[in-house]
Amino acid sequence: MTYAIVRPDPHIAPALQQRIDTKTKPLGALGRLEALARQIGLIQQSLAPELCKPQMLVFAGDHGAARAGVSAYPQDVTWQMVENFLAGGAAINVFARQMGMALAVVDAGVAHEFGARPGLIDAKLGAGTANYLEMPAMDAATRDLALARGRELASGLAAQGCNVVGFGEMGIGNTAAASLITHCLTGVELDSVIGRGTGLDDAGMTRKRALLAQAIARGGRPADPLAALAEYGGFEIAMMAGAMLGAAESGMLLLIDGFIVTSALLVAHALAPEILHYCVFAHRSNEQGHVVQLAHLGAEPLVQLDLRLGEGTGAALAYPLVQAAVNFLNEMASFESAGVAGKA
Amino acid sequence: MTYAIVRPDPHIAPALQQRIDTKTKPLGALGRLEALARQIGLIQQSLAPELCKPQMLVFAGDHGAARAGVSAYPQDVTWQMVENFLAGGAAINVFARQMGMALAVVDAGVAHEFGARPGLIDAKLGAGTANYLEMPAMDAATRDLALARGRELASGLAAQGCNVVGFGEMGIGNTAAASLITHCLTGVELDSVIGRGTGLDDAGMTRKRALLAQAIARGGRPADPLAALAEYGGFEIAMMAGAMLGAAESGMLLLIDGFIVTSALLVAHALAPEILHYCVFAHRSNEQGHVVQLAHLGAEPLVQLDLRLGEGTGAALAYPLVQAAVNFLNEMASFESAGVAGKA
Repeated sequence: MTYAIVRPDPHIAPALQQRIDTKTKPLGALGRLEALARQIGLIQQSLAPELCKPQMLVFAGDHGAARAGVSAYPQDVTWQMVENFLAGGAAINVFARQMGMALAVVDAGVAHEFGARPGLIDAKLGAGTANYLEMPAMDAATRDLALARGRELASGLAAQGCNVVGFGEMGIGNTAAASLITHCLTGVELDSVIGRGTGLDDAGMTRKRALLAQAIARGGRPADPLAALAEYGGFEIAMMAGAMLGAAESGMLLLIDGFIVTSALLVAHALAPEILHYCVFAHRSNEQGHVVQLAHLGAEPLVQLDLRLGEGTGAALAYPLVQAAVNFLNEMASFESAGVAGKA
Repeated sequence: MTYAIVRPDPHIAPALQQRIDTKTKPLGALGRLEALARQIGLIQQSLAPELCKPQMLVFAGDHGAARAGVSAYPQDVTWQMVENFLAGGAAINVFARQMGMALAVVDAGVAHEFGARPGLIDAKLGAGTANYLEMPAMDAATRDLALARGRELASGLAAQGCNVVGFGEMGIGNTAAASLITHCLTGVELDSVIGRGTGLDDAGMTRKRALLAQAIARGGRPADPLAALAEYGGFEIAMMAGAMLGAAESGMLLLIDGFIVTSALLVAHALAPEILHYCVFAHRSNEQGHVVQLAHLGAEPLVQLDLRLGEGTGAALAYPLVQAAVNFLNEMASFESAGVAGKA
């Protein structure tokens, strides 16, 4: 499988910079918003880019290893939180509403039958992954199906006119899977990419470290992204990686949330490095493995708010800054049009 | 003059924390938004606080010292930018519109006659301050009038139902005034609180440093906030300090922008330290003196976006995070109401 992600044509860059520099402000005074405006203008190949039909996608899945005790919460919380999303009561609901983003929940493989429900996309690959302490989390065919379904989902959104998509996730045990994938794809030692997840205490951390070391002892440390994904990945992580690749193929802007979302991006990036041109890193999570991922990708998130919730909350919270970048580019007067003098 | 700023009654704090902790998220997982929710709940003495009629106030004034060359831009840019604000074309217009904040420009003392204009509050104290290289920027009576007018302005907004106000400013030369005030009120050496403002080159920085050292040689380093304000302050800085004090007296939430706005807060804080309970620090500016101010106040801004524009842009850009704090407190389901299990 190859992905047709192209590096945006840089020819428009000088004209974009000129447009930014003639706005009524000192050169460079809008800092990171100026870099965002350049990036979005490049992606859309436009001096007047627009953000259309912003969409938050929350991918949910269960993990066979969750029952072994890698999380502070019982596995049932995955489906219970999906119900909470569908009822509108979770943090991501609140923030997506506030920011004017549509929200869809993707059942990539929750161990629960929801039936047909408004706001839920049924893309279920199974009732949770296999337990990677005993065997690979999924086989190659299922992994490829996850990637393909995610990709189709993104291209379907693009066909409906959406050009900005935020990624979020829910899955008890998925910080553990993210740690394993991060270990495989960055080569950084396992202990440095394991964190407290939803709030493990010291005893829980010791157990999680031991379990993940046991997983690596069984499955190895595949540096190949597809192999690592099948070995340790969640269905939600695999489908998210596919959706990221599809979104970048469609020229969409990708809002990258925290540790788990970035583990999916590590996979996507290893398959198609040009994807980074399409990514905005929303926030720096409190999970220590996120710092490792960001360094690996050379990424600098927009905000750091000590979040460790997931669901895409960081992506939603940073979205107004992305809008602000587009808005200043489109709406601010120039020195000439406003009759303001330049530097003395 | 004393200011009736009270420390919010802490009795409600445990109930607020309880409300935060029963939301469907791991304990503390919303990080700094949780601290914001606690702060706003305390200020409003409510478990369900609301942000009403958010208002951005941009205080404009000219500085006698600007003609001596402390800025990269000519003094006329002050009134030209006020015209740009009134026409809706500046960065703060764009961001206030996006964030749903009303915007008013306060002419505290611009060297230009605007006449009566929609969106402009005429509180002019003169056609710019005197040149502090030669004499105090303003006399004590004018300073007191500035403080009183600012205070009235804030209490007037409160009477209309506004309970959150963002502070911004415009005034060619006002980073220089802010540096002098910061030097006086923090005691940190002058060179460490002088920055490039709107973009001085190295030669300009050398000139600015020499001029400000000359100002201090003339006027001294008064540690008294009222004396420092009269000696070096801009009309916009003085009126902003008064408005901050009035806003805190009225129990409003104050959104503090960057270096110049924080210089006004240094004055207000020295007069009434309890004001800090009402302040949200929006962003960390690229101006090095801002770091000194924040350390002096023990403040940690919400975002760092390499902004150095002023106008209140940082305050407006951070406002969605403040809204998000209130929204999660009011709109998120609890574990009980959503039927989600707690920690195992």
